[in-house]
Amino acid sequence: MFVSFEGGEGAGKTTQAGLLLDRFSGLPIPCDLVREPGGTTLGEYLRDYLKSDRPLTPEAELFLFEAARVELVTNRIRPALAAGGVVIADRFSASTVAYQGHGRGIDLDVIAPLNAYATGGISPDLTFLLDLEPAVGLKRTVGHQMAFFEDLAGCLAPLHRNDEGRRYEDLVLEFHEKVRQGFLTQAYNDPERWVVIDAARPIEEVSEEVGRHVRERLGLPG
Amino acid sequence: MFVSFEGGEGAGKTTQAGLLLDRFSGLPIPCDLVREPGGTTLGEYLRDYLKSDRPLTPEAELFLFEAARVELVTNRIRPALAAGGVVIADRFSASTVAYQGHGRGIDLDVIAPLNAYATGGISPDLTFLLDLEPAVGLKRTVGHQMAFFEDLAGCLAPLHRNDEGRRYEDLVLEFHEKVRQGFLTQAYNDPERWVVIDAARPIEEVSEEVGRHVRERLGLPG
Repeated sequence: MFVSFEGGEGAGKTTQAGLLLDRFSGLPIPCDLVREPGGTTLGEYLRDYLKSDRPLTPEAELFLFEAARVELVTNRIRPALAAGGVVIADRFSASTVAYQGHGRGIDLDVIAPLNAYATGGISPDLTFLLDLEPAVGLKRTVGHQMAFFEDLAGCLAPLHRNDEGRRYEDLVLEFHEKVRQGFLTQAYNDPERWVVIDAARPIEEVSEEVGRHVRERLGLPG
Repeated sequence: MFVSFEGGEGAGKTTQAGLLLDRFSGLPIPCDLVREPGGTTLGEYLRDYLKSDRPLTPEAELFLFEAARVELVTNRIRPALAAGGVVIADRFSASTVAYQGHGRGIDLDVIAPLNAYATGGISPDLTFLLDLEPAVGLKRTVGHQMAFFEDLAGCLAPLHRNDEGRRYEDLVLEFHEKVRQGFLTQAYNDPERWVVIDAARPIEEVSEEVGRHVRERLGLPG
C-alpha cells in the first residue's frame, strides 16, 4: 500500500506522515517513510539546492523534482512495495502538478508525461490532502519570524511594489492560492484516491481521521 | 550564430571550442563559450554530481542534463544569440541523444520532447562532430593512468567478469561505441547542420578545418 500526504506549506504533512508511521509500527507490516525531494543521495543533494535561494528557472526546477522522484521510486518506493510493504510519502507527483503546474504556470500537458516517466506508473493508493488557507499555513511555517517580517514589510511596502503596484506578500499568497486550487482540483477529479482533510483542526483530530481511512482501506479493525 | 562541438571522450571538443573562441576574439562580434553540463550556478552544481561516482539512475541522469540545459539556454545562450553574438557550446542536446539514448538505451521518443522543451527550440546552426575511435579517445583522456588500469585489469580479469562472462573494459568500450554510432547517426540525418571531422588528426589540422567551415557559414574571407 502506498499512501501520500499532499498540501501547502505548514499544513502538517511531515507531522501526519510521522504519526501514521507510528501507527504502523505496532503492526507486522514493513513500513517505509520517504519525503520529496529527498530520500536518496541525489534527492538530498537536489533538496539542498531547491531549498536554497540560488538561481533556478521554473523549467529546471521541474526537471530537478522529476530527477529526485525517479531516483526515489527506483531505489526506495518500488522495492518496498514489491516486498509487500507500506510506503508513506511526504509529497509525491501531485505536488509537481500543483506547484510547477498550477502555481508556476507550466503547461499541465508538459508535466503529465514527465510525472508518468519519473514514477514509472506507480501512483499512491490513497492520498491525503491536508487542506489549509495559505495565509494560515505560511504563518505556521515561519512562526514568530512572520510578525517581524510583517512589521518590516509594512515599513518597506512603498519600496517593494512591483510594476503592477502590488505588494510582494500579495504575490506570494496568490501563488499559494493557485497551488491550493491545484491540489483541490486533483482531489476533485479522483475522489477514489484522494481524501481531503481540513488541516486547520488539531493535530490529534487530523491524525485520527487519517488512521480511520487507512484502517478502512486495509480492512483492519478500528 | 550558434556552433556546438560534439563527440566522445578525448576527442578534443574543449580544446577545439577554445581555439574557435580565440579565432573570434579578433573579430568585432561578441562571442560566448559555454559547456554542458555547466555554465550556470545550477549547471556547475549538477556537474559536480554527474562527474562524481555517486549513485544515479539513467533516468535521473537524463533529467539532470535537461535541468542544466534549460538553465544554460535561458540565462546564457538565448540572451547571447538575441544580442547578435556567437555562442560556442562544448556539448549540447545531441550529447543526450547519443549518451542517454544510444548509449544507455533510453527510448529516443522519450528524449526528443525533453530536449525540445529544455532548448525551447534553439538548435545549433553548425555542429562539429569530432569523431574518434572510443579506444583512442579513452586512452587520451586517462593518459598514463590507463596503462596502470590495463595492468590491473589484466590481473583482476578473472574476478571481474559479469554474468555474461565479459570483461568490464569491453562493456565500457561497447557503451562508447554505441555513443559514437549515436553521434554519427545524427550527423547522417542532418548533413546541413553537421560536419564530421576525423579527430585522430593533429589539433592544428582539426582547428583549421573548423575555422574554414565557420568562415564559410559566416561569409568571411579565408
